[in-house]
Amino acid sequence: MDAINIGLIGLGTVGTGVVKILRKNRDLLLKKLNVPLILKKVAYKNLSRPRTVDLSGIEITNAEEIINDPEINIVIELIGGYEPAKTYILTAIKKRKHVVTANKALLALYGEEIFKTAMEYGVDVAFEASVGGGIPLINGIKEGLVGNNILCMFGILNGTANYILTKMTKEGVAFKEALKEAQEKGFAEADPTFDIEGIDTAHKLTILLSLVYGIPINFEQIYIEGIGNIDPLDIQFAQEFGYRIKLLAVSRQTAKGIESRVHPTMIPIEHLLANVNGAYNALLVRGDAVGNILFYGLGAGMMPAGSAVVSDVVSLSRNLIKGITQRVPLLSYLPEKREKKPILSIDELICKYYFRFSAVDKPGVLSKISGILGNYDISIESVMQKGRKINGQVPIVMLTHEAKEANVKAALNEIEKIEVVKAKPVFIRIENDLRIE
Amino acid sequence: MDAINIGLIGLGTVGTGVVKILRKNRDLLLKKLNVPLILKKVAYKNLSRPRTVDLSGIEITNAEEIINDPEINIVIELIGGYEPAKTYILTAIKKRKHVVTANKALLALYGEEIFKTAMEYGVDVAFEASVGGGIPLINGIKEGLVGNNILCMFGILNGTANYILTKMTKEGVAFKEALKEAQEKGFAEADPTFDIEGIDTAHKLTILLSLVYGIPINFEQIYIEGIGNIDPLDIQFAQEFGYRIKLLAVSRQTAKGIESRVHPTMIPIEHLLANVNGAYNALLVRGDAVGNILFYGLGAGMMPAGSAVVSDVVSLSRNLIKGITQRVPLLSYLPEKREKKPILSIDELICKYYFRFSAVDKPGVLSKISGILGNYDISIESVMQKGRKINGQVPIVMLTHEAKEANVKAALNEIEKIEVVKAKPVFIRIENDLRIE
Repeated sequence: MDAINIGLIGLGTVGTGVVKILRKNRDLLLKKLNVPLILKKVAYKNLSRPRTVDLSGIEITNAEEIINDPEINIVIELIGGYEPAKTYILTAIKKRKHVVTANKALLALYGEEIFKTAMEYGVDVAFEASVGGGIPLINGIKEGLVGNNILCMFGILNGTANYILTKMTKEGVAFKEALKEAQEKGFAEADPTFDIEGIDTAHKLTILLSLVYGIPINFEQIYIEGIGNIDPLDIQFAQEFGYRIKLLAVSRQTAKGIESRVHPTMIPIEHLLANVNGAYNALLVRGDAVGNILFYGLGAGMMPAGSAVVSDVVSLSRNLIKGITQRVPLLSYLPEKREKKPILSIDELICKYYFRFSAVDKPGVLSKISGILGNYDISIESVMQKGRKINGQVPIVMLTHEAKEANVKAALNEIEKIEVVKAKPVFIRIENDLRIE
Repeated sequence: MDAINIGLIGLGTVGTGVVKILRKNRDLLLKKLNVPLILKKVAYKNLSRPRTVDLSGIEITNAEEIINDPEINIVIELIGGYEPAKTYILTAIKKRKHVVTANKALLALYGEEIFKTAMEYGVDVAFEASVGGGIPLINGIKEGLVGNNILCMFGILNGTANYILTKMTKEGVAFKEALKEAQEKGFAEADPTFDIEGIDTAHKLTILLSLVYGIPINFEQIYIEGIGNIDPLDIQFAQEFGYRIKLLAVSRQTAKGIESRVHPTMIPIEHLLANVNGAYNALLVRGDAVGNILFYGLGAGMMPAGSAVVSDVVSLSRNLIKGITQRVPLLSYLPEKREKKPILSIDELICKYYFRFSAVDKPGVLSKISGILGNYDISIESVMQKGRKINGQVPIVMLTHEAKEANVKAALNEIEKIEVVKAKPVFIRIENDLRIE
C-alpha cells in the first residue's frame, strides 16, 4: 500500500481542524505510520465562504464524488445532522469504504442501522470524536477497560452546558446571561437547544451505554433534563451544603436495571468532577477490576475534535495496511452477543435530593412540608431556612436521605398545593456515589 | 484459531489479579472476543505459599516450561526485577511468543534490547500496566494522541509516594511516620527505595519519553529527586502560598532540549493534579492539537494493574486472530524513525522556586539573602517571615520569579555560608505551566 486516500465531507470547525492537523503534523505522522495519509478530496457547502485552512493540492468536490471514488479508502463525515449525513455514510459503507464520523446525534438515533450495515459489508466505522471530543475515551473503554464489568459512569459531556454552569457558579449570573456570553464567545451555537436541554449529552450517553453494556443503541431510553431551569439561588445553596451543580450523564448497573439519565446533579465540591470547569469534559468510569478511571480534556473544538478524528484515521489506516478490518468489534461487543437489558425507569430511581420551597414565612410551614415528606417515606437529612425574603417569601432548603423518585414527585406535587407554598418546588438529584478515595 | 493459550510467569499481586479477572470476567470477555483466553500454565516461586486465587485447571510449572511450550501464544511476565525476567522475555520473544509485561524497571533499563529483539522476531510486546497501573494511558498516547506533537507532560506516577505526601499534607505528620503507616497498610513495600526516591517514577517517565518523542529508552537522562527530605513545614508553607507538593514527573519540549525530570514540585492547589490523592495516579499530557488531556486512576494494585495486563492480552489476541503482528509500532514511532534528541540538563532548567532559609532572627538577614539572590539574577516574588521560632531560628520563606537552576544552586550555596544562616537552604521547584483553563 503506497498511500491511504482520504475523502473529507464537511469543512466546518472539526473538518478544518482535521485538515490543519494532517498538514501541520504530516512529518510526525510519517514517523508513526509508514504510509502517507493523503487528503485527496474535500466536499463542502458554501464554496464561496472563505476558509481558514490551506486546501492546496486537495480536490474540492461534492460528497457523491468522494463516495464514488474507487481510490478513496476512508471517508470522514463531518457535516453533522441526520440527513444527508446518514445517506452518505450508508452509501460509503456499501462502497466498502471505511468511515470516520464525529456525528453523535446520527449515531444515537441511527447507529443500529449504520453499524449493522458496516458489519454486513465488513468495513470499520470509527467515532472517537463523537463523545468527549479530543479525549480518547471511546477506545479507552473498548480496549483499555475491555476486561472490566463497568459498574457505573458519570460524565460531563457537553462543553457548552458546562461553560454556562461554570459561569453561573463563579460569577453568580443567571442562566440567560451566561448563555448569551457563551454564544458571544463561540462556546454556544445560535440554536443551543441540544446543548442546554441535555439532548447532546444524552446522544453521547446513548453511545457509551451500548459500548459498555452491549445493549442496542436506543436514544429513547435515556431520561433527560436540561439546565435551563437552574437558578443561581440553587447554585449558591448547593455550595453552602458542599455541592456543585453539573449537567451529568449517569449510568449505573442496579439489580432492577441500568440507570441511564442526564440531568443537573449536585456533586461534592471536592470531587474531581466538580472541578471540571468551562468547556472541559470528563468521564468517570468505574470498572469492577480497574476501579475509578477518569478521562479529562476538551470535549469539542476545532483542534481537539480534529485530533480524535485523526486518531481514528490512523487506526483505520493501520488496519488497511495490515489488510484487516473489524479487529475490534465496532460497538465493543460481538454483534451476536449484543442484547437488550432492562433499563430502570426514572421513577424507580433511588437517590438523595435537594429541595427548595418558596413559602410564606409563617409558623408551621416546615412542619406541614416535612409531614407530607414523611408520609411518602422521605426523610430529611438537613434543613436550611434563611432569613432572606424573596418576593415576600423565604426559601426553605433541604437535603433528603435516599428516597424514591416516584415518591419525591408525588410528595412535591402535594406540597405545591399547600396554600402557603407560593411556587413550584425545586428539586435536584444528588450524586453521592462518586467517592474516589 | 480455537483458543489463545496464555502462560503466566509470576503470581504475586498483579499475577493474582490477572488470574482473578480472567476467571471472574470470562463470560464478559467471550462477548467481546470470539476466541477463549485459556490460562494454560502458571509459573511461580514459593509453591508452598498459600495462594488467594483458584488455580484449578491451570498447570503449575516453571518459566522454562512456559517459554518452551509450542502451544502458548502469549507469555505474561509479572515477576518484576531485571533477572531472570529479562532472560525469560528475550527467550520468549525468540520463541516467537508475544509478551505482556508490567515491568517498568526492566523496560526502562533494557527496553532497547527487548524491543529491538521483538522487532527482529516480529512479535508484539505490550506494557500498558508498566505506567499508571490500570489507567489506559500508554495506548491513549500511542493511539489516541497519535496525531499530536506532545508539548509537555506532568505525571503523578507513583502511588506510594503520593500516598505518603497526601498523608503528610492532610495530617501534618512527618515523612517517616507517613512511610511507616503506608508500609503497615500495604501501600509501601518493606524496601520502599524505588518509590520514595523517585526511581520508579523515573522508570515510568523513561518509557513515556520514548513513546512521546521517539527517542531511545534511556533511564540515565532523567534527573531524579525523591521525597525523603520533604518537611511538613514546607508542605504547610506551600499551602499558605496556594500550592501543594507532589512528586511529579515532568517533561517539556524547549528550544534547547527536552526537560526530563522527577522531583517534588509545588503545584497550584486548585489544579486537578493537586487533587490527585492517596494511591491514585494521573498524567496530564498537552498535545499541540488536543490541548490538555488528563488520565486518572489507580496506579497500582492487584486488580487495577491486572485490568491493564488483561487489556494487553486481549489486544494481542485480536492480532493473533487476524494473523497480524506489530499493527502499531511497539514504541509508537517506526523503529527507523526513532532518534536521539537533546535532553536539557537540570542546571539549564528555568522555573520558579520556593526557598526556605533557617536564620537567626537579626536585622539585615533578609537584606543579605536577597542581595546574594540578586547577584545571581534571581528576583523575589514574595517573602513570608513568620514569627514562629524553631530552635532559636526563624524560617524565611520566599517564592522567586523565573530563575535558572544553576544560578539558584550557586546562590543557595553562597547563602548557606552566611554566618546567621543555620541550616542548608531548602528549595522546591514550582510548576506554573499547568493551567488547564
